[in-house]
Formats: sequence, C-alpha cells, structure tokens
Amino acid sequence: MTYTDLNTPIRTIMTPGPVEVDPRVLRAMTTPIVGQFDPAFTHIMNEVMEMLRVLFKTENKWAFPVDGTSRSGIEAMLASVIRPGDRVLVPVYGRFGHLLMEICERYGAEVDAMYAEWGTVFDPAEVIQKITETKPDIVAMVHAETSTGCMQPLKEIGQACREMDVLFIVDAVASIGGTDVRVDEWCIDGLIAGTQKCLSVPSGMAPLTYNDRIERRIASRKKVERGIATEEELKQQNTTFIRSNYFDLGMLQDYWGPRRLNHHTEATSMLYALREGLRILLEEGLEERFARHVFHEKALMAGIEAMGLELFGRRDVKLPTVTCIKVPEGVEADSVRNMLLTEFGIEIASSFGPLHGKIWRIGTMGYSCRRENVLAVLGALEAALIRHGVQVHRGEAVQAALDCYMKPAVKDPVEA
Amino acid sequence: MTYTDLNTPIRTIMTPGPVEVDPRVLRAMTTPIVGQFDPAFTHIMNEVMEMLRVLFKTENKWAFPVDGTSRSGIEAMLASVIRPGDRVLVPVYGRFGHLLMEICERYGAEVDAMYAEWGTVFDPAEVIQKITETKPDIVAMVHAETSTGCMQPLKEIGQACREMDVLFIVDAVASIGGTDVRVDEWCIDGLIAGTQKCLSVPSGMAPLTYNDRIERRIASRKKVERGIATEEELKQQNTTFIRSNYFDLGMLQDYWGPRRLNHHTEATSMLYALREGLRILLEEGLEERFARHVFHEKALMAGIEAMGLELFGRRDVKLPTVTCIKVPEGVEADSVRNMLLTEFGIEIASSFGPLHGKIWRIGTMGYSCRRENVLAVLGALEAALIRHGVQVHRGEAVQAALDCYMKPAVKDPVEA
Repeated sequence: MTYTDLNTPIRTIMTPGPVEVDPRVLRAMTTPIVGQFDPAFTHIMNEVMEMLRVLFKTENKWAFPVDGTSRSGIEAMLASVIRPGDRVLVPVYGRFGHLLMEICERYGAEVDAMYAEWGTVFDPAEVIQKITETKPDIVAMVHAETSTGCMQPLKEIGQACREMDVLFIVDAVASIGGTDVRVDEWCIDGLIAGTQKCLSVPSGMAPLTYNDRIERRIASRKKVERGIATEEELKQQNTTFIRSNYFDLGMLQDYWGPRRLNHHTEATSMLYALREGLRILLEEGLEERFARHVFHEKALMAGIEAMGLELFGRRDVKLPTVTCIKVPEGVEADSVRNMLLTEFGIEIASSFGPLHGKIWRIGTMGYSCRRENVLAVLGALEAALIRHGVQVHRGEAVQAALDCYMKPAVKDPVEA
Repeated sequence: MTYTDLNTPIRTIMTPGPVEVDPRVLRAMTTPIVGQFDPAFTHIMNEVMEMLRVLFKTENKWAFPVDGTSRSGIEAMLASVIRPGDRVLVPVYGRFGHLLMEICERYGAEVDAMYAEWGTVFDPAEVIQKITETKPDIVAMVHAETSTGCMQPLKEIGQACREMDVLFIVDAVASIGGTDVRVDEWCIDGLIAGTQKCLSVPSGMAPLTYNDRIERRIASRKKVERGIATEEELKQQNTTFIRSNYFDLGMLQDYWGPRRLNHHTEATSMLYALREGLRILLEEGLEERFARHVFHEKALMAGIEAMGLELFGRRDVKLPTVTCIKVPEGVEADSVRNMLLTEFGIEIASSFGPLHGKIWRIGTMGYSCRRENVLAVLGALEAALIRHGVQVHRGEAVQAALDCYMKPAVKDPVEA
C-alpha cells in the first residue's frame, strides 16, 4: 500500500456544520507545539478562558473547552451534573433534544420529556408550567436545533428555573458565535458550545461554561485520581462520584485552574485553532458578527423564495444560521444534493429522522457565511433543480440575493 | 483586551509526550476541510483504518481513532467492555496502571489490583498465576509506563488470557510507533494508542483496535440513539447498554463502518494530522523506526552515564523511548528542569507521586528522537547541573553520545 500526499477537493461548505475553516485558523494550527505545562502554553490556556467568557457573555470563573467534539462537551456537562435518579426535564423540538435525553438516560437520570412539532419551538410559558408541575432537578434544552432550523427563546425559562432552584443546562452548539447567547442574563447554569459551526474552527473541541451553582454540585462529587492523590485525599473519596473520568469537570477544573493538576494532555494544535477562531470573532465584534449572519440569511431566503421554493419551519423562531427548504413534491432530495457536491463542489445538508428527504438544510455559519457562497449555492441549486425537472423561476434567485447585496439592477433600456 | 498573533517559543521537547510534531504533520493540518460525509473524507477515514491495522500488526476489522486525547480512548475501551460487576485484574507498576484502575472503578467494575515496585515490571508467570487463581473477566494492563520508563512483556500474559477466555486490554499509548507492539501475536483483545508521543502528531486523538471477542461484547450492549433509531430498533433496546454515549464503541463502529451512521462530527484536521503521521511512519518502516529509537536511546544513555549520573529502573525491561535519571542527592529537581526550559529552551519531564523530585524523565519519541536533540539535552543538562553545584564529568556526556554517532574522535597528538 502506498498513500499519496493529502489531496482533497476544495468545497463550498453550506451545511449546518462542519463549515469552512477560516484560513487564519488553519494557519494557526501549523504553529510548532510547546509542552502542556510550558508557561507559554498555560498562558494561552488562560487567554482562551478569557475570550470564551466574552463570547458567552458571562462572569463565570469556568469557561474552557473539553477535548473532543461538541457531543463530548454535552456529555461532560450532563455526566458531571446528573446524579443517578435525578429528574431531568428535556423539552424536545428536534433531533438534538433526543440526544440530550439519550445522554441523560445513560447517566441514570429519570427523564421526563415534552415534545413540540419539528419546525416549531415551545412557548416558554408551557415549559415553565411543566417545571412548576413536575419540579425536576434539572432542565436540559437545545438553544438552536440544526435539525429543524429553529431557535428556542430561553430567557424566561432560565429565570423560572433560577426562581425554582432548578439547574438549567443549554446546548448552544449551533448558535454560539452566530447569534446572540447570553449566559448570565438568561440564567443559564451550564452551557455547551461547538467549534465547527459558527466559530469556523475544525471539529474537535467543545467549549463550555458553568457557574457556581454547578461548581458546588461538581465539588460534592469530587474524586481525585489514584497515582496523583495524596493519602488524605484518597480517604475523603465519596461514593456519588462522577461516573466518567475523562468527562469529570472537577478534574478538568483542576487542570485548567491554578493547580494545573495533570489530567489529559491538552490538544495543543486544536487549542491554537480555537484561540485564533475566538480572536477573529472578537476582532469582528460579537454584535457585528450576529448582524452579518442575519444579513446573509436574508439574501439567502430572498433567493430561495424568488426561485419559487418554500421555507420550512416557523419564521418567527427561525435560526439565522440555518435555512431549511421543503423538497418539492416528487424530487429525490439526495440526488439533488449529490449533484451539487459532484458537479458544483457545493455541500448542503439533508436532515434526520422524520425530515430526511423532506427538507434540505443550508447553513450560513462563520467563515462560510459570505456573499460569494450564498450566490454560489443559489445558482447551483437552481441549476440542479432544473436538471431534475423542477419548474423554478429561472434566473430570479441570484438576482433576489444581489438585490440585497447591490444597488438596484439597471433597467433594460427598451423596457424603461 | 487585545490578543496578539500566536507567538510561541520554539522548544526542543524531550519529554515523554507531547513531543515535537513532525513539520509535515503541521502542514497537513492546513488543508481546507471537507464535510464529514463527503466521499473525499470517508475515503480518508478508510485509509486511516488501513494504516492503523499495519501499525497495530492486526487483522482486526476495527481500528479507528476516538476523538479526544489518549485517555479518551482508554475510557472508550473500558466503558464499552466493562459491565457493572465485571471483575477486572489490573497489574500496576506505575501511574498509568492507577489510571486504568480508576476508570474501571468508575464504570462499576470490581477491581483487583496487584502491584510491582515502580521501576520494575511483573514476571508474566506471576500475573498468570493470579489470573488462574482469581479468574477475572478482564485483565487491563499498561504496556509501557512513561511514569517509570519500564515496559511489560505481554505475549505470555495474552496467551494465558486467551486460553482462559479472559479479555486482555492493553494501554500502549507510550509505546506505539516507537517500539514493537503486536496485537494479534500477543493475543491482545483491545488496545489503545496515543498520537502525541511516538507518532509525533498533536494530542487530541486516540487510535484503538479490538477484535471480534470485544465486538461481540459491544454488540450485546448496543443502544441506538433516539432521533435516528427506527421504531424496531427502539423496541430492541436492552438494559445493559454502555453507560457513555460519546464512548460507545458500537456507535463509533456504525460511524466508521459502511453504515456511516451519524454520531459525532469527526475532527477533520486532527484526522488529516493522524493520516500524515501514519504515512510518515509507514514510509520510514516500522522496524526501521523501532531501530532508530533504540539507536538514539543508546546514545542518550551513554551520555547520561558518562556524565556520572545514574539511570533509574530495571535495565532489562527499559522502555526505549523514555530514559529515567536519578536526581543527584541534594539537587532541587524542578529547578534544574526550569533552567533547561528558560535558558536552553529544552523541556524534560519530572515524574508523578512517589517519584516526583526523585527522577527526571527524558523522552526520545518520534520526531523529537533525533541526533541534534539528544546532543542538545546532554549538553544543556550538564551545564545546568554544574550551575546547580553538582560534580559531573565535564565534557564527557556529549562526547559519549558522539561516539555513538560518529567515527572515533581524533586523539590529541600530544597524548597520542
């Protein structure tokens, strides 16, 4: 067997993640590594923690990445918080709500779910009513469902949880860095983010944050590792310890905090990437970045509708970074996607479970969220649909998007 | 707050990991990403699986990385195999044996440990005797202890486990790619490796492999995720399911196998890095690479002893990639290490628990394992020791290493 030099195609990635990585981030990863306890490296760890606090809009002490994909951060948070038998309420309005349920069940929670139709979200009052009735220990909820392109308002639910002393844990993997997330103001106790979507950093790290309410819970479940624990510490072990070593946020704290107690070996190059992604985001400005996502979303939606296609999901709770399109009757959804990939080098997404084959999902996230990409996906989608025999309003989609981007088109002098 | 461009010092990293990353690997990480289900990417996933089988000397179907640091691979293997109440024998001869115990306990195993003094290993007959007496379900063991620089012979233990139908799980994080590991010949059922040591790839992935004995165990504990499971699959769920979602090797199989069932979003750039690291290794040749590690180890040991320092640990079971040195009486070990880092830009390691401050550990792993690095660390260590008032044989260390690398030195004509 011989293996050639890595020789991948260049793609226009318009999925809800992973999206195109910012070239500056790719470049940061070529930086030669330093050791994990090198002062040059622990300084970078501290910088990343600072930048994450700004991103999360929080004063929390703890804000750091778990070394793994987004899902690892979700599991670290739930594994560290859930004690067997804890009652967790999970309001589900898409695939990733199911994932929260799944992980809660694995860690021995008694899960109480409530469901909203895919393509909608919950009226906060409905969730609050349920919390009041069932008095769970924890509410775990997705902020932005990439599976349906919908975004759940969280502030009232968070405030209600705080008043009723319920822990509120939020999966913001798909929204962070693309639309507003306010950890402290929305009374979120624990929040998990991802890198491969609106941060435009490769998949492989899961930044998270949590407050002192969760820190106390974690502290009560502390287990110090054999081989580095003192005799005294070994004696004090309790039996409600967290069931995962890798995901034990108490141990991660001791590594990210001033004690610098060895746990894993921090993923150096990925941390360089995350640092650069955060730096780019802070240079752009959070509010400016959110506005950019909305700007390109509008151009994309205008194009889709001008083509004669229909958007999926409730418009008033639409996630700005994911646009879902109903697949026209009789069209094989995956065939269109394959044509976009193989002929145009453009990737868009399908969806999961009940929506597979029913909708396409187009992401406008981070570095992928830019003018030429929006125009390219609209032009290519129109062409692919024509090729599949679909009646579309030819030529209108790109023009509608250009209307958002440019001054009005010059009128044809004969028509004028 | 403003953050400067990433501006790290260049270090000579002579620890037992993380070590210097091969420049080709750094470069591979700048490759723009493609989507996780892009055929261009699944092709790369398959290539990595093929290359890992060669590295592991196995015919196993399953050989893929877990997205996380080495420890995540260890936990994925143990979490997937251990059913609560399983009896696990862990022979401990250093810190990472304690880690195996720790993780086994977290997953509800009844752990039976046996201990060898740090700096030695077990006589295989002693371990086999214990297995015969206690009939555990699983034996979990470290192949190479970076904490003590010792390597455990595994073949006889593996064969005994197979005969007695005990699962044999091995942590080869520190040895893989630096010294011989033979999964099939040594009857290892499940093996975990790391990237940041002898593969010279950054930390953040944990390649592992397992055979059909473990695959059957995993299959009996299968849990299909809500939201992507069919109704039929949900009905068939059993209750002995694996307690982690992220570390459920059954789900990882469905993602790495032809079904390509969505689990996590593969860490694209890290996989590019791993692919390049494996390609470099196969180009060098496994046996040639092992010989290179022994060659530089010999030069390093010759230098250390010529300086008048004493090596730590049993020589006949020494791990070729880590050399442990006894700290001379009265010397503050960390002060010497700090001087090496700040004045010479060279990083060497301390050790853990009972050995902290008692030994230094010098790694000669992967890309860090080369002539100029060995010579640099010897010269700098001598200078730092002199600066700390230690009596050493001045000038001898580098000469002894050069004797290994070059033709004999020209004799001084007056002496001759």
